[in-house]
Amino acid sequence: MYIFGVDIGGTGIKLGIVDETGKIVIKSSIPTNADAGYEVIIKNLANQLKKLCEDSGIALSEVSAIGIGCPGAINSKKGMVDYSNNLRWTDVPLVDELHKYFDLPIKVSNDANVAALGEHVFGAGKRYNDTVMITLGTGVGGGVVIGDKLFEGNESKGTELGHIVIVHNGELCSCGRRGCVEAYASATALIRDTKVAMKKDKASKMWGYVGGDINKVDGKTAFECAKTGDYSAQRVVDDYIEYLGEGLCNYINIFRPQALILGGGVCAQGENLLAPLREYVKRYWYGGEKSPHVELLIAELGNDAGLIGAASLFLGQ
Amino acid sequence: MYIFGVDIGGTGIKLGIVDETGKIVIKSSIPTNADAGYEVIIKNLANQLKKLCEDSGIALSEVSAIGIGCPGAINSKKGMVDYSNNLRWTDVPLVDELHKYFDLPIKVSNDANVAALGEHVFGAGKRYNDTVMITLGTGVGGGVVIGDKLFEGNESKGTELGHIVIVHNGELCSCGRRGCVEAYASATALIRDTKVAMKKDKASKMWGYVGGDINKVDGKTAFECAKTGDYSAQRVVDDYIEYLGEGLCNYINIFRPQALILGGGVCAQGENLLAPLREYVKRYWYGGEKSPHVELLIAELGNDAGLIGAASLFLGQ
Repeated sequence: MYIFGVDIGGTGIKLGIVDETGKIVIKSSIPTNADAGYEVIIKNLANQLKKLCEDSGIALSEVSAIGIGCPGAINSKKGMVDYSNNLRWTDVPLVDELHKYFDLPIKVSNDANVAALGEHVFGAGKRYNDTVMITLGTGVGGGVVIGDKLFEGNESKGTELGHIVIVHNGELCSCGRRGCVEAYASATALIRDTKVAMKKDKASKMWGYVGGDINKVDGKTAFECAKTGDYSAQRVVDDYIEYLGEGLCNYINIFRPQALILGGGVCAQGENLLAPLREYVKRYWYGGEKSPHVELLIAELGNDAGLIGAASLFLGQ
Repeated sequence: MYIFGVDIGGTGIKLGIVDETGKIVIKSSIPTNADAGYEVIIKNLANQLKKLCEDSGIALSEVSAIGIGCPGAINSKKGMVDYSNNLRWTDVPLVDELHKYFDLPIKVSNDANVAALGEHVFGAGKRYNDTVMITLGTGVGGGVVIGDKLFEGNESKGTELGHIVIVHNGELCSCGRRGCVEAYASATALIRDTKVAMKKDKASKMWGYVGGDINKVDGKTAFECAKTGDYSAQRVVDDYIEYLGEGLCNYINIFRPQALILGGGVCAQGENLLAPLREYVKRYWYGGEKSPHVELLIAELGNDAGLIGAASLFLGQ
């Protein structure tokens, strides 16, 4: 059995054929061309999916379904993209439109949900029944799998895990509230706080790390300079871990998953990030030592998470 | 079909026979006598349940199951009370022990979960599939029903909705963290904040309301005096609504339930509490007007929520 996996992004669409073990048999990508309008984009996508069959020698009759991950507010039951800033789509009947080209079951879900399901079924979470995944990127996205089933909330509008306030009246968040996890634990927030620390400490080694150009600060700057003993860099890292830990404790107390999976660029820090986070959450989660252990894990599927996750809408649950 | 419903509390145990429509046919209560040890307590409970049959004329053979709500950390799959401060129980095999007296299916769940399920099946939430319930009392308890099934988290240790931090480094919470919803939105917190406001404003009408005795402050004091135009009382109410609203927005963004049900003594304020809360959450929840509406409702089962909820472990899901 093969599944078409589709990972729609603002600039590019990744697509592939995934087998039932979660292995990508063949993959390719096309530019999204958001300006072209959804009918053109979806027609182009359909052609590319058929081309994957030609190129791989897998007959279309061997493909049993199409799974799609898409950014924005998705209604997965109706197969609709209600709205997506990245794609500039409103009320797009994605599944119906793609059915013009394929007589196959088709599912679509939010990209963060799909990534969480992919990690649950084939990645870091595959040994568990209940997992929560957080992606630390430009924003903070979340996905929740309960009893091996993706939980999406009413009309698929739940699990906005980046948008829970941890600092009342704190930093302004992209969602309009103040003090959300996203406003403190995203890569964007880490970069903001790194820059603030540098401006306060002209002697920090972070200045040397970025060649004196504050615009070159990224999510690694503070972590890397903290390793060399730089005080201000260490403060940035400590604060970041405390805010992220606060968010993770909240998720743990709410879901008490068997495992909490972290994804996104910041996770390249590996144990450097995980070790202090583990200490923090074990110290503060509800019930302390008496409560069931929650594993903290780094996501394993990397850039393929979207494709494999999309396919796992049919393979995993 | 009849179900025994049992609502175990620190000082008393309520028990009853509930029919399949959620109606209590007969009920009674006994003191918990926590010092007596669990074997004695459970034997006593068993006798009282049999007495309910005698008193009501319902044959034991007509009762098909026993549902129990119990405070503390419950493992509902194993039927164990892992620990309960109120009962001073640790590792009590509640279901196994009660099976010595009844050859019936028996389930136990945490009391906040059971109340949430009861409201979902027979109370304010009965028209919905996904509901979240928050009880504002001495603490803040929560329960979550997803797709008409109680969600409890791994080893039934999730949905500690009172213990999510909304104010980083805020007021100390009973759980050891700082700034949890419970530390701001419980009746205990409301009373604390009312007293602080009174001490700052010796001219507040709240002093007259409690006859000059600050120890008589309760959860109504600020709400009632705000109605008379007292500035300090109104500030307490406004702050309370803002903190509670912050918590509710977090729950909404995470679960996006169809309805969020509020229980506990503070809810006697009715629309006085709900109207500003509705305004707050609609203003700040993720996605604004584009997101699915979430009803805010007051719990309907009152003091019977525990009994009916316990029975609904067998009637509702």
